[in-house]
Amino acid sequence: MRTNDLIWKKREGQELTEEELHHLIAGYVKNEIEDYQVAAWAMAVFFQGMTAKEQAALTKVMIQSGEQLDLSPIEGLKVDKHSTGGVGDLTTLLLVPLLAAMGLKVAKMSGRGLGHTGGTIDKLESIPGFRVDLGREEFIQQVRRWNLALIGQTKEMVPADGKLYELRDVTATVESIPLIASSIMSKKIAAGADVIMLDVKVGNGAFMKSLAEGRKLAKAMVQIGNQLGRRTAAVLTSMDQPLGNMIGNALEVREAIELLQPKSVEQVTDDALLLTVELAARISYLAGQSASIEEGKEKALETLCTGCALQSFRQWIEAQGGVGAVVEDPDRYLPKAQNKEVIVSAQSGYVKSLQALPIGKAASLLGAGRILKGDAIDLAAGVIIYKRQGHKVEAGEPLAEIHYNDGQHRKEALQEIAKAYEIVEEPVPAPTALLLGEVML
Amino acid sequence: MRTNDLIWKKREGQELTEEELHHLIAGYVKNEIEDYQVAAWAMAVFFQGMTAKEQAALTKVMIQSGEQLDLSPIEGLKVDKHSTGGVGDLTTLLLVPLLAAMGLKVAKMSGRGLGHTGGTIDKLESIPGFRVDLGREEFIQQVRRWNLALIGQTKEMVPADGKLYELRDVTATVESIPLIASSIMSKKIAAGADVIMLDVKVGNGAFMKSLAEGRKLAKAMVQIGNQLGRRTAAVLTSMDQPLGNMIGNALEVREAIELLQPKSVEQVTDDALLLTVELAARISYLAGQSASIEEGKEKALETLCTGCALQSFRQWIEAQGGVGAVVEDPDRYLPKAQNKEVIVSAQSGYVKSLQALPIGKAASLLGAGRILKGDAIDLAAGVIIYKRQGHKVEAGEPLAEIHYNDGQHRKEALQEIAKAYEIVEEPVPAPTALLLGEVML
Repeated sequence: MRTNDLIWKKREGQELTEEELHHLIAGYVKNEIEDYQVAAWAMAVFFQGMTAKEQAALTKVMIQSGEQLDLSPIEGLKVDKHSTGGVGDLTTLLLVPLLAAMGLKVAKMSGRGLGHTGGTIDKLESIPGFRVDLGREEFIQQVRRWNLALIGQTKEMVPADGKLYELRDVTATVESIPLIASSIMSKKIAAGADVIMLDVKVGNGAFMKSLAEGRKLAKAMVQIGNQLGRRTAAVLTSMDQPLGNMIGNALEVREAIELLQPKSVEQVTDDALLLTVELAARISYLAGQSASIEEGKEKALETLCTGCALQSFRQWIEAQGGVGAVVEDPDRYLPKAQNKEVIVSAQSGYVKSLQALPIGKAASLLGAGRILKGDAIDLAAGVIIYKRQGHKVEAGEPLAEIHYNDGQHRKEALQEIAKAYEIVEEPVPAPTALLLGEVML
Repeated sequence: MRTNDLIWKKREGQELTEEELHHLIAGYVKNEIEDYQVAAWAMAVFFQGMTAKEQAALTKVMIQSGEQLDLSPIEGLKVDKHSTGGVGDLTTLLLVPLLAAMGLKVAKMSGRGLGHTGGTIDKLESIPGFRVDLGREEFIQQVRRWNLALIGQTKEMVPADGKLYELRDVTATVESIPLIASSIMSKKIAAGADVIMLDVKVGNGAFMKSLAEGRKLAKAMVQIGNQLGRRTAAVLTSMDQPLGNMIGNALEVREAIELLQPKSVEQVTDDALLLTVELAARISYLAGQSASIEEGKEKALETLCTGCALQSFRQWIEAQGGVGAVVEDPDRYLPKAQNKEVIVSAQSGYVKSLQALPIGKAASLLGAGRILKGDAIDLAAGVIIYKRQGHKVEAGEPLAEIHYNDGQHRKEALQEIAKAYEIVEEPVPAPTALLLGEVML
């Protein structure tokens, strides 16, 4: 098999076979195929796309490039969810304990934050003592005992993905739906879950800027998952404004604890909670626990409102070595920034837009995010949002608040926040629905 | 300037500036830019093409990657021609002495053969003593004295081209008109000629299979040449059957000597001679020596028929150290193969097609060509064609003859020749015109 012929075939819009993709990807991981050939192939994929069959085959050979997590010692279906990343997206912190409390098994791997998007691993590490480096046995035992465990991604899993992503990053081949879809799905599938619920973020703070693009990605991933034997579905959700009101690692844990407090169903109004319930409902349905999404939603709401999900969150923290008391007194246990500063509105009116991207950038500039992989971050830093889209605001009233220890980029952060808010005189309608669409197979 | 941004820009169909292309090409030659980035850029160019301005800029920065030949010590306009390569294309052997005899200055660089196409350097080396490694001073003095000189391409000239071509060859990015055009034109322009006549071959034995593709390439090259201040034009000529009747290095020199013999205008009927006259006429016109192509044609025919071109060929050979007497007694001086074998027709009828590609492959298999750069070749080996398109043939009558020393691939060569010939019962029209079109700016 000549690699040049495979590139040529893709260039001409033809479908590569699983065998051909295996030659390419396995050879690349073993350094037998040069990166310039893989770069040319990736660019050809950018222009010619891939068939559904080809995307499944690519995902499969990527998975085969490394180890896979064997979750079979855990009885029943294992469930997982993946978000394509946004600003103030604390869903995992809410959803994992909620699912566990509903009786579902969550054995999850998560990543760290990069750029303007946070990562669940960083957020959890802001809880004193929380360990994300459980051994494999420990991880599995914890899911068996408490229904939930979360660890960091290992390098042994899908090494092809890391290598390929690094190459795509410097060859202008990142924005290719088949390559994005197979990258995400290879990691999810290698991590062993039977049910995979995808949350594709769309909007200015997301990787996918348009609903049409987001839908393509969602479809591609759902097809891959189901072709490779996993019950996979996706929702498309808005990332025009930040999902939660607190952006930053410890801040998001704090917001999660607040949101998980026992409440009445009528009090479930926050976007983050609404989305968590939608996701839990679908996962319950996909796992065969509920006969319909509607039934799943009822179950999720009930579990959430009784405080069982909060209870599960506490168990989770303690199981992974963290201080469980954080759920009763977050102020005492979570890291706090030395400096806080309130941003007030210069004018009276209504919030027309609160863009997620500049808010994410502001939090990152204050220390909550990384520019490059491996950069140190400040777990306490971040932004708190007081006014969201559609809110009325008076001149001098607080819009947001910044938390930081290192003020080096404070000025730029404030500029980003100013950029994020657009305030107009006329009343503006509340934002369009959070749930923009969904893809079920 | 970030290289990734330049690739992205091209991927999105935008025009790169000369400065940006300089960054890319100069950086690549200096090993400061990685080949995987250049490979991705080349694939993006394959899909998005390049504007005329961009192609001229690319050609310019490629030329700047190395040395240029300064022909200013030679008075007057220097002329050159380039063929995109075919089978039995001995035009350079005929045209160079014809132009010199017409009083034009030809300071030419040529290449060696590769694959099924021959190279002028190899052909000339079949003449005992012929040196293609003249020093720069010697080269220029010879043109001043005899109007013509021909040397091999040097590595110091357009190093970007060799490096880029090697990369394109293994990344399925060879077939890109802008990249082919800039590759050819950068070498031609760096070699210093003021007038560049291009012969774009079209047909089964050529790189360009369709007239439409050939025309695109011709247009691209003519635009580049004229934008960079060279008087450039192109003809499109048929390469469905071999141009000459002898294919192989010494064989083509032998045919050239036969064709250059004094004759009447009516005897100028061979395709190779007709094409040579067309090219010489246009070069004479572009150089301002003739007021029209028609006038140039008359001059060329006269110079050819009087035997002056043959005289010039002899002077050329002697000036470069070769045995001039070869033009009187080629049998004595040119290398001859030990084995000759005649292929006869199995049936009576008419030659419907005589495909150039398998004939070229046959000659190559017999030793006349190289598979890889640097392979040794057999100067005596090759194929002689007795019957061409439209010819009547009787069963048992000779179609062709093979010459070889090493019979290792004799059987495959015979199979190729059998593949080349299609003989039908009904008379077939003579082939369509050799000159398929032209591009003048």
